[in-house]
Amino acid sequence: MVIYGMNSHDKIRVCVVGATGFAGAEVCRFVLGHPVFELTFATDRKAAGTPLSEVYPAFSGISDISLSAPDPDAIVSAADIAFLAVPHTASLALTPSLIERGVTVIDLSADYRIKDPHIYESWYKAKHTSTDLLTQAVYGLPELNRKELQALSVRYKQGEAVLVAAPGCYPTATALACMPALESGVVKGDFVISDAISGVSGAGRAPSARTHYCHANESVEAYGVASHRHIPEMEQTLSQVAGRAISVVFTPHLAPLTRGLLATVYLPVNESVTQNELQRIYERRYASEPLVSVLAYSNMPRTGSVAGSVRAQIGLALDARLHHMAIVSCAIDNLGKGAAGQAVQAANIVCGLPEMAGIDVAAPVI
Amino acid sequence: MVIYGMNSHDKIRVCVVGATGFAGAEVCRFVLGHPVFELTFATDRKAAGTPLSEVYPAFSGISDISLSAPDPDAIVSAADIAFLAVPHTASLALTPSLIERGVTVIDLSADYRIKDPHIYESWYKAKHTSTDLLTQAVYGLPELNRKELQALSVRYKQGEAVLVAAPGCYPTATALACMPALESGVVKGDFVISDAISGVSGAGRAPSARTHYCHANESVEAYGVASHRHIPEMEQTLSQVAGRAISVVFTPHLAPLTRGLLATVYLPVNESVTQNELQRIYERRYASEPLVSVLAYSNMPRTGSVAGSVRAQIGLALDARLHHMAIVSCAIDNLGKGAAGQAVQAANIVCGLPEMAGIDVAAPVI
Amino acid sequence: MVIYGMNSHDKIRVCVVGATGFAGAEVCRFVLGHPVFELTFATDRKAAGTPLSEVYPAFSGISDISLSAPDPDAIVSAADIAFLAVPHTASLALTPSLIERGVTVIDLSADYRIKDPHIYESWYKAKHTSTDLLTQAVYGLPELNRKELQALSVRYKQGEAVLVAAPGCYPTATALACMPALESGVVKGDFVISDAISGVSGAGRAPSARTHYCHANESVEAYGVASHRHIPEMEQTLSQVAGRAISVVFTPHLAPLTRGLLATVYLPVNESVTQNELQRIYERRYASEPLVSVLAYSNMPRTGSVAGSVRAQIGLALDARLHHMAIVSCAIDNLGKGAAGQAVQAANIVCGLPEMAGIDVAAPVI
Amino acid sequence: MVIYGMNSHDKIRVCVVGATGFAGAEVCRFVLGHPVFELTFATDRKAAGTPLSEVYPAFSGISDISLSAPDPDAIVSAADIAFLAVPHTASLALTPSLIERGVTVIDLSADYRIKDPHIYESWYKAKHTSTDLLTQAVYGLPELNRKELQALSVRYKQGEAVLVAAPGCYPTATALACMPALESGVVKGDFVISDAISGVSGAGRAPSARTHYCHANESVEAYGVASHRHIPEMEQTLSQVAGRAISVVFTPHLAPLTRGLLATVYLPVNESVTQNELQRIYERRYASEPLVSVLAYSNMPRTGSVAGSVRAQIGLALDARLHHMAIVSCAIDNLGKGAAGQAVQAANIVCGLPEMAGIDVAAPVI
Repeated sequence: MVIYGMNSHDKIRVCVVGATGFAGAEVCRFVLGHPVFELTFATDRKAAGTPLSEVYPAFSGISDISLSAPDPDAIVSAADIAFLAVPHTASLALTPSLIERGVTVIDLSADYRIKDPHIYESWYKAKHTSTDLLTQAVYGLPELNRKELQALSVRYKQGEAVLVAAPGCYPTATALACMPALESGVVKGDFVISDAISGVSGAGRAPSARTHYCHANESVEAYGVASHRHIPEMEQTLSQVAGRAISVVFTPHLAPLTRGLLATVYLPVNESVTQNELQRIYERRYASEPLVSVLAYSNMPRTGSVAGSVRAQIGLALDARLHHMAIVSCAIDNLGKGAAGQAVQAANIVCGLPEMAGIDVAAPVI
Repeated sequence: MVIYGMNSHDKIRVCVVGATGFAGAEVCRFVLGHPVFELTFATDRKAAGTPLSEVYPAFSGISDISLSAPDPDAIVSAADIAFLAVPHTASLALTPSLIERGVTVIDLSADYRIKDPHIYESWYKAKHTSTDLLTQAVYGLPELNRKELQALSVRYKQGEAVLVAAPGCYPTATALACMPALESGVVKGDFVISDAISGVSGAGRAPSARTHYCHANESVEAYGVASHRHIPEMEQTLSQVAGRAISVVFTPHLAPLTRGLLATVYLPVNESVTQNELQRIYERRYASEPLVSVLAYSNMPRTGSVAGSVRAQIGLALDARLHHMAIVSCAIDNLGKGAAGQAVQAANIVCGLPEMAGIDVAAPVI
Repeated sequence: MVIYGMNSHDKIRVCVVGATGFAGAEVCRFVLGHPVFELTFATDRKAAGTPLSEVYPAFSGISDISLSAPDPDAIVSAADIAFLAVPHTASLALTPSLIERGVTVIDLSADYRIKDPHIYESWYKAKHTSTDLLTQAVYGLPELNRKELQALSVRYKQGEAVLVAAPGCYPTATALACMPALESGVVKGDFVISDAISGVSGAGRAPSARTHYCHANESVEAYGVASHRHIPEMEQTLSQVAGRAISVVFTPHLAPLTRGLLATVYLPVNESVTQNELQRIYERRYASEPLVSVLAYSNMPRTGSVAGSVRAQIGLALDARLHHMAIVSCAIDNLGKGAAGQAVQAANIVCGLPEMAGIDVAAPVI
Repeated sequence: MVIYGMNSHDKIRVCVVGATGFAGAEVCRFVLGHPVFELTFATDRKAAGTPLSEVYPAFSGISDISLSAPDPDAIVSAADIAFLAVPHTASLALTPSLIERGVTVIDLSADYRIKDPHIYESWYKAKHTSTDLLTQAVYGLPELNRKELQALSVRYKQGEAVLVAAPGCYPTATALACMPALESGVVKGDFVISDAISGVSGAGRAPSARTHYCHANESVEAYGVASHRHIPEMEQTLSQVAGRAISVVFTPHLAPLTRGLLATVYLPVNESVTQNELQRIYERRYASEPLVSVLAYSNMPRTGSVAGSVRAQIGLALDARLHHMAIVSCAIDNLGKGAAGQAVQAANIVCGLPEMAGIDVAAPVI
């Protein structure tokens, strides 16, 4: 437990917009346990006036904050930083006014992730109305863009409001699984396959036929095959990393667990690459990353070992029998490293705080 | 419900060897509900003397059979057909003596699945001691080998004891997902990827760290990557179907459900193939199959819709964006179509009974 | 498997009203596997025109019936018997017109269960508009009212339309757990405690905050404490059985499973009663009941052993340390013996069929 | 987040004996996140030499401690405090030598919980070999015995080694649910009923038929009816609180969740008590307790809201219809407030630290 040596006037006031969604509630959890961030404002369009602990009794005895309407004026008065845990397009509507009035935004929606607005528009079926900010936004995957986030920090400390686009859950796990191999140049060809399994919290808090317990329980299924909106986000990251266009064949699956996301990726690699070399490429890449562990060769991660935490675990094997195929599996908590936890990690960097502040939670080990 | 018009002396006496394992118990369930098969003998090496309903209280009020030791003499006296739900090598030890003495064997172990004994020996680390029978055994996937099973039926009706090697769970789902495309000639290249998810019953009934509730619950993980013993079985089937050597990159996953297996396969197909053509290839292939349903294009199957039944459901999509990749998902119950149910289906064909006898169970729909 | 020796013209045409709810779909499953009943009509107010197998893909390959609107004229043309799997008051609106026009009704709603309309009205907050039929309806718990159901059968065979009020899930398990002790006269006092745990399917198919996977998963909770609408139904049955007014302190709990209901009841008994006597009271009471098993003394039933079936299992113990308290636990499938299966059981009796026809399903044992 | 203002030499060195069991691993988690405690020694008889993070990959990146054999000399050298997460009798064998040599013991086993050694011996079928220490041990339920724990703190600060008997999981929830009513004098009679539901982690980490995923999943069952070893512990506490002998009729159930324990208790109360009065008795009793929340009248707690945390939530209702029965439900995490977390809470008091140090974890809210 780091003692930050700060006085109470050093607190950074935080607003969570969309605090009753799963990702928003999880941001609240991390902020409430954070040594510097202070939850001063939490919004929900429908539940304004209700205590957050009534919506989530887990907050009973921890916070007595009440929900407010997401009024920009009120947010600007109450907070230095706003986490936006809102559906896409809702951020486009809110972010410009917050930035303009000095509130730094950590956006968990998809609105500022994809640099090419035409690609955004074709996948999200919505006009991108904030292309100026889009060029300034930093994609908040610290393992990829730590320097860019640190550059934001310089501007933040000078009093400027900055914008982070926090990554999606599938893109985070897929990127972490692919980055070392792609960066090292051992991957052949122009596409990778990502076959992923998510817990049901990934489908959001709105009740639906798909999220009904009796539908989701005791069943697995693929969905959104070859059409999931996270595809262009993955392709942007993997292409950036590889230095050439990489496309992604992506199949998400739903499995009966609340939290957890596993991406198993298939990367065709050069025949000269050995198991040891591949393993070392991954170990070296993540050696100094506080949140990414690489397991011993051919040990595969369980999502249960990272659920409730902000950590990622990676395991890999090389199928050298007939084809030189690297199989890499990355386990995260879709709400932790896949959403809220990573958003706080990025915010810590932007604010110049220790990167693990508030997210070095001891997750349940069982 | 078919009325078979048989008298009680037409009953076929059935022994289940290994009746307390999950697959063995499931064979008992189907046999106990079968109009012609009669469960006359059920064995368990350790629990001999115990009522089956004490091991599985679900049989209370349904069967008062007691377990016996797996003594070949006793099996020969008691049964016309023996289902062997035993670990590999145990079947090698028992099958020859049963066949020789006139008992037809439906073997659920891996011992007679792989036609090349050297491949068997290298993957199963055991000597194949029954290669004569191996050449006679028919691989019991009715959708592939119905004619061969019907040929066994001719010999069975002439009083000969015959041998069926019932397929494994992953090979069944992978074969059903790949066969139409491979047979039709639209698949390019020499390998396919099968990414599969299984319920925990696939790991067997023996308590272990992996099958502990608190380990398996709320977690998904890959295991046996690029090394699972079902790989040569899949490659044998897919190569037979394709008419050329096909290798399989295979990643099984464990998910927190009791029953259910989903195989999602990636098949690179010719660029000339359209969505409609691919869909029709699958629909035509399975049009007359009683146990295989092909869902509407891009609708993906849930394992929950087949759990407890012997059915398979298939859904498919074509990722035509950049690569021509067919993504086909096949859902089965690993104990139903993936083991016990399919074994009974094959036995029905061998015995000249309606193929659906005893396995046309109305599975729970919720 | 019973061969009923009937020709196809002996089929009894069945309509299921509310076929897409969980109980309704389960009635469809049993009817589709029934040797005499034939599913000729299935209704859903909103999904008229849709194939049932589209709503529940588990029916793919089993039934191609399409859903219809619940029009009384159409029901009368299509069916001899109607199962009403509808919310309370909906049956009051439909049953009279069906009965009047010759359609026998098996009502799974609460509308005709409670003999005193004032009690119905005070608990269900609705006017009872069909009190004439209420006096004729038989409460369809065969273990309690088999003779009354057989009397209905006489009238049914004379061409009369009759009415069965199928019991609720909690009342079924509570009644089965209490009846032998109450009938035998060993219970002291004027109240019993029933502490029950239900799977989530008991909450119905409508998506809600409570049925969301992420709410129901990994959690147990009590609900409707001292106020659940099944209380008067239980009290009516237990009082009838005891021959004096018995009130019920009832606490239902929700647990993370799809199907299954366990009622653990606490019955203060005379100090002279021994363990053996109590055990024998239960064994004798249910000795000839085809669907109720009494386990060995102090062995407690698992809901997993009856899930998917229509069976009930009962275990009991006597806490003789300080207080003479009998603790009796009854496990059922809330949709099986607790709803649809028991409705079919009652229908079988009414129709003069073997009581187990179509419901002697081999449930998954694992 | 409290900043304790301590230097590193203020650290208190902690040993966890039995660190690979579920409760032991959970103590490790809390100690690793504690501002003052430092995990210096962790033992496992069989896995000595193995890194703890190999047994529980959730510790990867958090702790690189390796397991040691539970050698008393080594423990005495390494630690100021030892948490004993061991089976009963194992603590009797180890505790005296640790106390004698100056190591304070927080014992999570049952060995020092029951003040009357004859009762211990009759329920645990083992000789109590440490009756001197038994008289000195404090039962570590802070809501009941905070003053006694604070008295231990005085002795601890004077350099004396002291002994805390941390309560069992069922006794904790049952005591918290009963204490306010019993203390207030509104409870009639001489017994209470506690009907409880536990997650599977309560059954421990050893693989067994009962903890097999396929047995525990999708099923609930009662077990240990009227014979569970936690009964005398509950009776001791409730009798102490009531000031007269109270016996407990106790039925534990197993439900398919990893963590969580719900005790629903039935307390016959005086007819003069109103709902409001009862509610206020509970609210007043726990108003200043940091870990116990009382929900609004008739709102019942979910275990999911406390899983992963050390908190308890209580809801209650009064069934005033015919009998004056209070129904009180208390939700805890069986490993949190029910074991490891409460042990750390007691240790904090003994060490004179803020009571919430290290256990004020932000539990996952979803």
